[in-house]
Amino acid sequence: MSEAAAPIPFGINLGFCVKRWVSPELWTRVVRERLGLDLVQFSFDLVDPMWPDAVLERHAGAVRREAQASGITIHSAFIGLAHYTFNQLLHPDPAVRDYAEEWLGRAYRFAAMAGIPRVGGPLGAIASRLDGTEAEAIEPADYAELIARMHRLGARAGAEGLSELYVEPTPLRREWPWTIAQARQMMNDVAGSAVPWRLCPDWGHGTFEPLYGPGEGAMEPWFRELADVITAVHIQQTDFVLDRHWDFAVPGKVDPLEAAKLLRATGIAPAPVFLEVFYPFEHDDMSILKALEASSALLRQAFV
Amino acid sequence: MSEAAAPIPFGINLGFCVKRWVSPELWTRVVRERLGLDLVQFSFDLVDPMWPDAVLERHAGAVRREAQASGITIHSAFIGLAHYTFNQLLHPDPAVRDYAEEWLGRAYRFAAMAGIPRVGGPLGAIASRLDGTEAEAIEPADYAELIARMHRLGARAGAEGLSELYVEPTPLRREWPWTIAQARQMMNDVAGSAVPWRLCPDWGHGTFEPLYGPGEGAMEPWFRELADVITAVHIQQTDFVLDRHWDFAVPGKVDPLEAAKLLRATGIAPAPVFLEVFYPFEHDDMSILKALEASSALLRQAFV
Repeated sequence: MSEAAAPIPFGINLGFCVKRWVSPELWTRVVRERLGLDLVQFSFDLVDPMWPDAVLERHAGAVRREAQASGITIHSAFIGLAHYTFNQLLHPDPAVRDYAEEWLGRAYRFAAMAGIPRVGGPLGAIASRLDGTEAEAIEPADYAELIARMHRLGARAGAEGLSELYVEPTPLRREWPWTIAQARQMMNDVAGSAVPWRLCPDWGHGTFEPLYGPGEGAMEPWFRELADVITAVHIQQTDFVLDRHWDFAVPGKVDPLEAAKLLRATGIAPAPVFLEVFYPFEHDDMSILKALEASSALLRQAFV
Repeated sequence: MSEAAAPIPFGINLGFCVKRWVSPELWTRVVRERLGLDLVQFSFDLVDPMWPDAVLERHAGAVRREAQASGITIHSAFIGLAHYTFNQLLHPDPAVRDYAEEWLGRAYRFAAMAGIPRVGGPLGAIASRLDGTEAEAIEPADYAELIARMHRLGARAGAEGLSELYVEPTPLRREWPWTIAQARQMMNDVAGSAVPWRLCPDWGHGTFEPLYGPGEGAMEPWFRELADVITAVHIQQTDFVLDRHWDFAVPGKVDPLEAAKLLRATGIAPAPVFLEVFYPFEHDDMSILKALEASSALLRQAFV
């Protein structure tokens, strides 16, 4: 890569604010003043799309206003821990899948009102089996229904004026997609959606060795083979043993400089990268702020 | 304790089933056939009280039917990870607190329909401060409002025919109550509620050293000083460094035999104890089932 390579846009997913800096008056100042960032990915752990319309409208207005006032761009809004706890669009009960589809529709509406042009996250999980064995593939009927829902959701996002929807692949056989081939198939099957579906891979997902086996450069094939449909990336520090979502004050296997090099080499680079970290609820605020200040500085420098 | 001490009722919180064995057809068989247990605490990570009425009624019927058919008693239903992700009854926005109150009302209704007589969990969290310092106490106005909500919720639970409501103290300054004195004060302030409010302490909360300081027997004062208002207990394996919610296949500081002795010595013993464990979503099913089989056998033996 030449010295003149363009900087990689770097921001932070607001998952770290969960139950802490929950209002836009709080998180805009943490992001701007403490972390020195001006790009974020909003989290639906801060606003539940099922809140009543009037409450959502008020919160959307505050998010839009505070982000603008502090010079922060909100690239996208992503499903957080709360919604990910459920089986979403792959729950065994079709009525619960319908509820998850409605949840996403309301998420799109909130995003549009808040001035956030993109929405995404994982799609869902099938149930486990009694004997602990895990399916190699989702049932064809379930997959077909999922694709139909994604087309309907694309239309709904279009009606709300959004510009892009994301699937975040997760390292679980019960979720979908979890391989590069599945991700490619899905991208083919949702081509033509009213709003384009794209991928947002996560550094701690593709590198999860208990599922994919050992491989230091495990993100490389994802980026190389899916470069045309990847327009955002999650980064985290991790040990490849679990999907850690550590900050970069914790020692781990992800090297930010190598990460930047890989994003440039595979042509992902113009896409923004978001640090996504989660802390135990009982972790104290002060050490979180300090660790995030250090991590943001480190990553800002790597992605320059 | 004499050899003739009565057994301590032992069951499991269904938090381990989240996104895995989600239907009652699945979890009743895992609990009965794999873990050899007949007592559970239901988790609202398996059923979201905000699902439409018809869906809730159908799921409540299935829970009631399958539990009965498999000889499983459902002692109570507790808030899970999804709802705990939000600030609940202490969110900065009163309209969001109202939504959390409505959520609980619907949770009571679901429990009543499913034949579950008790509901509980943590109450809520205030927001964090910008500078990372943490309040020593909740604002008096917020506390008064919380108590008023708890009395309203008691009336609502009474109308649904429930017999008991629980507060689960958590080891966070931003949540409430987190000290023995606060818990006692709250129990005094909600005395006279249409349905009695009681406490369900958790072994990994009272022992959280970063908040309470070191102390090997840290659960003892909770049990001794609040024995009259404790009618259920959560147990987990933990290292006192974080609120781990490990199973007992993991080495840690909680000794099941010592735990049983303490519950008997402090007079808590007739109250049921529930193993509450959480696993990373990406953890494979097979190792979870094996670790839970071993943990259940160990604890069953300790509480005999």
